[in-house]
Amino acid sequence: MSPLPVSRWKVVCAYDGTGFAGWQSQPGSGAIQDVIEARLNAMLGGLVRIHGSGRTDAGVHARGQVFHFDAAWRHGAAKLQAALRAGLPPGIQIRSVAVAPAGFHARFSATGKRYQYNLLAGDADPFTRPFVWCVERPRPLDEMAMRAAAAVLRGQHDFAGFAARRGPEEEETVRDLRRLDIVRRGRRWKLVFEADGFLYKMVRSLTGALVAVGEGKLTPGDLEAILTQATRTEAVQTAPPQGLFLEKVFYGRD
Amino acid sequence: MSPLPVSRWKVVCAYDGTGFAGWQSQPGSGAIQDVIEARLNAMLGGLVRIHGSGRTDAGVHARGQVFHFDAAWRHGAAKLQAALRAGLPPGIQIRSVAVAPAGFHARFSATGKRYQYNLLAGDADPFTRPFVWCVERPRPLDEMAMRAAAAVLRGQHDFAGFAARRGPEEEETVRDLRRLDIVRRGRRWKLVFEADGFLYKMVRSLTGALVAVGEGKLTPGDLEAILTQATRTEAVQTAPPQGLFLEKVFYGRD
Repeated sequence: MSPLPVSRWKVVCAYDGTGFAGWQSQPGSGAIQDVIEARLNAMLGGLVRIHGSGRTDAGVHARGQVFHFDAAWRHGAAKLQAALRAGLPPGIQIRSVAVAPAGFHARFSATGKRYQYNLLAGDADPFTRPFVWCVERPRPLDEMAMRAAAAVLRGQHDFAGFAARRGPEEEETVRDLRRLDIVRRGRRWKLVFEADGFLYKMVRSLTGALVAVGEGKLTPGDLEAILTQATRTEAVQTAPPQGLFLEKVFYGRD
Repeated sequence: MSPLPVSRWKVVCAYDGTGFAGWQSQPGSGAIQDVIEARLNAMLGGLVRIHGSGRTDAGVHARGQVFHFDAAWRHGAAKLQAALRAGLPPGIQIRSVAVAPAGFHARFSATGKRYQYNLLAGDADPFTRPFVWCVERPRPLDEMAMRAAAAVLRGQHDFAGFAARRGPEEEETVRDLRRLDIVRRGRRWKLVFEADGFLYKMVRSLTGALVAVGEGKLTPGDLEAILTQATRTEAVQTAPPQGLFLEKVFYGRD
């Protein structure tokens, strides 16, 4: 029997980040990547490594995280999905499994990402609390000012003032924030961010800055100055992780 | 200084039952009642016991569980609520605290309860999974048959065939199911049950029977026969706990 050909598999997954130590593999585990790799290795009996589109921090959720891995599997995508799903904890869901196009890489082939950040005015019940940042205490947010600030942030800018440094390496910090929507329904606010890529903690920093504008602590003009200076200052606070969802990773023209 | 008068306090709380061993106090703990009592005793320095409107099983949730306790507290209801809330895990929320009317008892004064059971057609994402029972696999439920079955169940009946015995004691098993609504929106089903009182596992047994009717395993006529026989049989399966919410406890004419 000839050896099975190795395929590259593209997987879309969702997770409730609450109980996990973030996406990225790390010693001591509890990382989502480690949990999925352990399951794949139990299935495939080999040293499978998975490659995500990017990391998410502890407590951050995903509806559309993407990863790839290489494996020889003779039973097709549907059975791979069923076997993988069966061995994962309920907080991780495998949404789709498919053979990846030639040359596909979950991180380097990505052409953009969409995130959503959920705010809630006032107190959350126990079912909502792990998925929102409770704001508007004591005063309502100034929605007009936040919309003006969003207009300042949209487009191509150097977002170094709205990011956290991950390490000593120098990174290109210009990104094209092609979408920043503020959607409000009653007590629920939804901030939607879409860009060709995001810097480390960029969505949470932008959210923190937008809420600060809503609270009257910063003005849209302040955000413009922070973009121009391209330096992180204490004026920009990072929003907590639990309100953040990685919604979708874009590839090619989809 | 004269000793503080003891008041009876009525508390409405919500909880995500996922991580708890149910409402009822038990050795080894993990029960919601134990967690709340421990917090109250830390605040009040005494042997406070709380009395719930009734137990909920492990994994069952509540939006409106009610309990009472007696305590001498000089700082008013708002501060009692804030102090209690501050020491509880995020899965338990204190929704209101008030001095109870004279003679109030969370269990014995209750005149009715409302429960909701959530069904989802197909797979749930990780954010929904702890709060629904996934059904309609492989075939869609027969909604017409389920509505006919609900009409059979509504009203005053001996529900012994839709309950589990808790112990050797004989209990009156006639209840007035004054409301049983089936609400469907897309993939989401909501079953709403309201009665003067519920037997042990009655809502989950009624839900299991309704879903069995939707699957064609039982007919509305079978449910009528089970009501008449008033004996539990294997034909009635108990729905899993995580789809169930105690919505509201009624007192007096509210």
